[in-house]
Amino acid sequence: MNVQSKLVRNNDGPAVPQYTSPRQFREEARKGLVVLTRNQCPGFVQVGLVSLPRAQALDFMIFCQRNQKACPVIEVLEPGQVEPRKSAPGADVRTDLPMYSLYRDGVRVRDVPDVREEWRDDLVTFLMGSNTSLDLALQRAGVQTERYRWPVTTKIPTEPAGPFHGPLVVTMRWLTPQEMIIATQLTSRFPFNHGAPIHVGDPAVLGCDLEHPLTGSPPPPMPAGLIPTFWACVVTPQVVAIAAKVDFMITSAPTYGLITDIETDKFGIP
Amino acid sequence: MNVQSKLVRNNDGPAVPQYTSPRQFREEARKGLVVLTRNQCPGFVQVGLVSLPRAQALDFMIFCQRNQKACPVIEVLEPGQVEPRKSAPGADVRTDLPMYSLYRDGVRVRDVPDVREEWRDDLVTFLMGSNTSLDLALQRAGVQTERYRWPVTTKIPTEPAGPFHGPLVVTMRWLTPQEMIIATQLTSRFPFNHGAPIHVGDPAVLGCDLEHPLTGSPPPPMPAGLIPTFWACVVTPQVVAIAAKVDFMITSAPTYGLITDIETDKFGIP
Repeated sequence: MNVQSKLVRNNDGPAVPQYTSPRQFREEARKGLVVLTRNQCPGFVQVGLVSLPRAQALDFMIFCQRNQKACPVIEVLEPGQVEPRKSAPGADVRTDLPMYSLYRDGVRVRDVPDVREEWRDDLVTFLMGSNTSLDLALQRAGVQTERYRWPVTTKIPTEPAGPFHGPLVVTMRWLTPQEMIIATQLTSRFPFNHGAPIHVGDPAVLGCDLEHPLTGSPPPPMPAGLIPTFWACVVTPQVVAIAAKVDFMITSAPTYGLITDIETDKFGIP
Repeated sequence: MNVQSKLVRNNDGPAVPQYTSPRQFREEARKGLVVLTRNQCPGFVQVGLVSLPRAQALDFMIFCQRNQKACPVIEVLEPGQVEPRKSAPGADVRTDLPMYSLYRDGVRVRDVPDVREEWRDDLVTFLMGSNTSLDLALQRAGVQTERYRWPVTTKIPTEPAGPFHGPLVVTMRWLTPQEMIIATQLTSRFPFNHGAPIHVGDPAVLGCDLEHPLTGSPPPPMPAGLIPTFWACVVTPQVVAIAAKVDFMITSAPTYGLITDIETDKFGIP
């Protein structure tokens, strides 16, 4: 098969094959491959998924518009549609992510690798840009992306819409001053993928809950000379949709996104 | 009153008072003032308005997402809501624009300065950024904005959603090479207000209908040394909503927008 596959250590876990072709990765995920998507297919935009009933879709979309930095909607699939024709032609959002989370009345009932059985014709699917998409561009510009990053909840309220409300979730990265400047320049070029940082410096200004990051362990003491830098995070709409106790919802499971065919370097260019 | 008012020639028309305070301008519009908004309150974001029934709102919002460069949604007002709490607190979208157009089944039936009588509780209002908002920023950077600009229809199809489909409308400006470079840099900073140009050079590449600009007269022969430069235009969603023959719709009348409290220079900053 036309894939450059090699073994790499994925997020300090066991060695796993690394894919470079989004189409191939999606095909493997469809067949049952379960690996974190973050280090797969570098250079391609990865998106989080939220599928919810049509009855809640307009309110949810207004929520995303009001909180655009956290909820950059890259594609919307009309009720029942499963193919992201723009961002991943030929893909099927019910099968092509490694893992999904199912929610009923705001409770995460279980994680599954395939949601064809749970699918409903009234589900509207939102694909939203993820901070991980820019990792390769940042690395090429000399900004390390492997260490010192945490998704954390803040005390900043989002702008509510209908039943959707809750705190902003951010990605905190610890960067050197030079990295921070370069990362600000670079991410500003991608306004539809969270864009520029929303804050630089003291996490307390945002009311960050550093004791309970949404994935991984709490941050260690910060090495001298680094600057905490904060971007709005795509976990926000998931947290908010859970708080809204939507009767039924499917999301990408944390750390498992959909890998699209959009090349990050060309993202946002007409 | 706390307003710096002076007489200026507005778009080659008769001299009219110039307002600097969006709030004051909206109050005057509420009382019946009818002037083109383009030269009013320089430095504040102006928006076009589309209000349509809730039944069409999700499809229309998906259309705007799919054609984001032409349809930069700045605020959405939930069904029946009339105050843009984010962009123009205290304003009333039924009265605070100088002129509205009313459509039934896709036909523009009449223009009115107030739509309180026509208002319905199921109307969802979309406010969308306008090319005119950036005029002051462009002028300060040395780019002339008064002459050589036309809204024209192209043969580029928009990405459809539900009943909404139709050609992209663009603003064509004729600029010097230096102006074109500066305008590209500057408008790139405002991704939620049409952003960077979508094309530079031959209008035929876009299939522009130069014989029938949407307002004003056809362009004269182009002076030597200028470069046609094209931005996606907020008239697009209006043209598309008309083509969709929505049973009832209110829009801002052409050249009459809502002047918001958002300062253009700060637009898009978190």
